[in-house]
Amino acid sequence: MKSGTAFLIAARQCEIHDLQQLMRTSALVRRAGECVHTLQKERGLSNLWLLAGDEFGAALASQALQTRASEAALLGALEELDTSAGQIANGARLYSRVAFVLEGLEALLLLRDDVSMRRVTAEASTAAFSKLIAALLAVVFEAADSATDPGISRRLVAFFHFLQGKELAGQERATGVAAFSGGQIDLPAQQQWMDIVESQERCFAVFEEFSAEVVDATARWREAEAEAQGDVGALRALALVTSEGGRLPGGLGRTWFDACTRRIDRMHEVESLLADDLLARCRDRIAAAEVDLEAGRALLSGATAVPKGKFFERPAAGAASVATAVAIGPHLERSVLDIVQAQSRRLQAMQDELAVARAALSERKVVERAKGLLMAHRRLTEAEAHKMLRQTAMNQNRRLIDVAESVLAMSDFLAPPPPSTTR
Amino acid sequence: MKSGTAFLIAARQCEIHDLQQLMRTSALVRRAGECVHTLQKERGLSNLWLLAGDEFGAALASQALQTRASEAALLGALEELDTSAGQIANGARLYSRVAFVLEGLEALLLLRDDVSMRRVTAEASTAAFSKLIAALLAVVFEAADSATDPGISRRLVAFFHFLQGKELAGQERATGVAAFSGGQIDLPAQQQWMDIVESQERCFAVFEEFSAEVVDATARWREAEAEAQGDVGALRALALVTSEGGRLPGGLGRTWFDACTRRIDRMHEVESLLADDLLARCRDRIAAAEVDLEAGRALLSGATAVPKGKFFERPAAGAASVATAVAIGPHLERSVLDIVQAQSRRLQAMQDELAVARAALSERKVVERAKGLLMAHRRLTEAEAHKMLRQTAMNQNRRLIDVAESVLAMSDFLAPPPPSTTR
Repeated sequence: MKSGTAFLIAARQCEIHDLQQLMRTSALVRRAGECVHTLQKERGLSNLWLLAGDEFGAALASQALQTRASEAALLGALEELDTSAGQIANGARLYSRVAFVLEGLEALLLLRDDVSMRRVTAEASTAAFSKLIAALLAVVFEAADSATDPGISRRLVAFFHFLQGKELAGQERATGVAAFSGGQIDLPAQQQWMDIVESQERCFAVFEEFSAEVVDATARWREAEAEAQGDVGALRALALVTSEGGRLPGGLGRTWFDACTRRIDRMHEVESLLADDLLARCRDRIAAAEVDLEAGRALLSGATAVPKGKFFERPAAGAASVATAVAIGPHLERSVLDIVQAQSRRLQAMQDELAVARAALSERKVVERAKGLLMAHRRLTEAEAHKMLRQTAMNQNRRLIDVAESVLAMSDFLAPPPPSTTR
Repeated sequence: MKSGTAFLIAARQCEIHDLQQLMRTSALVRRAGECVHTLQKERGLSNLWLLAGDEFGAALASQALQTRASEAALLGALEELDTSAGQIANGARLYSRVAFVLEGLEALLLLRDDVSMRRVTAEASTAAFSKLIAALLAVVFEAADSATDPGISRRLVAFFHFLQGKELAGQERATGVAAFSGGQIDLPAQQQWMDIVESQERCFAVFEEFSAEVVDATARWREAEAEAQGDVGALRALALVTSEGGRLPGGLGRTWFDACTRRIDRMHEVESLLADDLLARCRDRIAAAEVDLEAGRALLSGATAVPKGKFFERPAAGAASVATAVAIGPHLERSVLDIVQAQSRRLQAMQDELAVARAALSERKVVERAKGLLMAHRRLTEAEAHKMLRQTAMNQNRRLIDVAESVLAMSDFLAPPPPSTTR
């Protein structure tokens, strides 16, 4: 018959299994991040090329090759995944997101052809790249949302928000290229730009909140942002203070692009530090859990055969002593019961910590649901739905999340009216 | 190379795997519920026996045999579980809870001996049985908390709260037996009793909220409660309106016990309906998911090879049409992309529904965390910690959950002061 001890060991094995799953999704997440990075660079160069920048042709062609290399690495990571059921937590949602990305990567071949032949507008090209990048970010989001270890969850939440912030920095680069190359900017474009800046700041605030443990990455990040103030910050200020319909000084398109590119490349260094730390953390946790499992086995085989009635006794020196005893080690007289109780308490504490990290993801979920509702009921594209939410937030001077919540609360009113019936 | 289609199929296989896990935990949960029921009856009879009720000896002995039978069934269900890692969602927490229950079941053998020899007080016996029942409820709670299908999650949340409410009804029976057998009741006992009644009502309110789909069980429940008004309700009113330190009419101990037992037995019928429905729902969902998987395979093999560029196109008739198309079926021209998008949307909607059901579990988590904190920092037993929270809530005329939240907010102040250092 399976004993309490057998279930205790099984519980620890489940923990190790979950950590190994997290290691695999973290490796995938790192590749997704790399892929996002190369796509961002290709989007920016495609934009310059389409805006009659013939001098960017060589750089674009070279960048496309780098994107292909990062795609290949991502596909390799996917190939290594064991997609049989039960191997990955949250498999259904994660794999659906992956399937969407793979469709996008196939479509990218055609998009690239259209770009090289200048058969698409800069706007359409930007939108297409952005859609694919959003699909990759959704993969990272699902991975973060399914993490079962608090430290790893915090790192994934930080990583997702960093990527999202970096993506907004990429959108800002594209917005600025259009404005500086066109030599002027109007009020709606300025508002959109400011909105991108604000959203970026929110993302990086969440990133900083959850990356405090990753000391080198946060230090590198602060240093990089201080450096960017001199060029990106200055050009941004120039474009955003110009009054409505104002003209911008000529010839700044390339300057702006290069400054943003340096900023994004510095971000990419931070991203690499984050990814390294994420994988190192996974390895450390697995190693620690394996030591725990072995220690647990030894402890249980030597655990004092306390009187069975102990289950119903009141704790001798308070529950705190159980956790302390676990830390102190096997030289104390321990019963299976003590170990079981300590383990349940530890798992509960972990779940509480997890809830905090996951709450940071809920804002995005609300906005995504509101967008989905608008898309379904108002026949909008995702970009249009997002714009509608953002515009409403600006007009009403409310936060995006508050508008999204209002939309969800009003969902019944948004549905198309039922076909009228004769009575 | 793995295609988007392969990941789409993998996603559906993961869903089926998750449902099969849920089926196994649901079967376990049903056995846990049965075990709780027999333990409740044994607790009540042990109480009567210990309070000098020699006439309950035979009934107690017979009940102990029934408890043993339900234990054996639970152990059988545990035996059937595949405890290898990755087979059950949330395995670490669930198995830790199971290990605790198994320790308790072993200790029960000694407790029973003590009861039969009258070596324990009625109070200590009640506390011991209650601790074991709470351990079983914790297993049901973990199962509810890890469900990944909204319909099954709602049923598990309803089932957990029903069991919890029924356990409070059992505690009320024990409280009443002590009062009616003793022939008097004081104010603190009345307050405790009223608190149990209120907690019961909250549990059954949550049960009703999440069991609306289980029509026969809710109907049977309302009918049962209406019946109980005549006996349990009347005796309860008698005990609770008696003024402070009041005497109770003699000879009502047995009457009260029998009335409560009828009420609990009727609840047990409702519980069986709920468990039947839970397992039927699991079977239905698995069957439906398997049909979906096969349909998906057929659909994907016949899916129109749409131009790859479609990924970047705006939806022709709004996103709503995708979901509609899935419902209408394979005679429509469908692309892999449409199917992927519809699936992601469906999974997202499921997760939103899940969040609603799980929120009902969060109140308990907050109270449990507050109790754990008090146990650790103030060296209290669980019962004492619970009493302290409840007493504070009564004194301050606040809800238990609000007091628990205050305790968590003040956690830093509750820790024992650090040892003083000389400077």
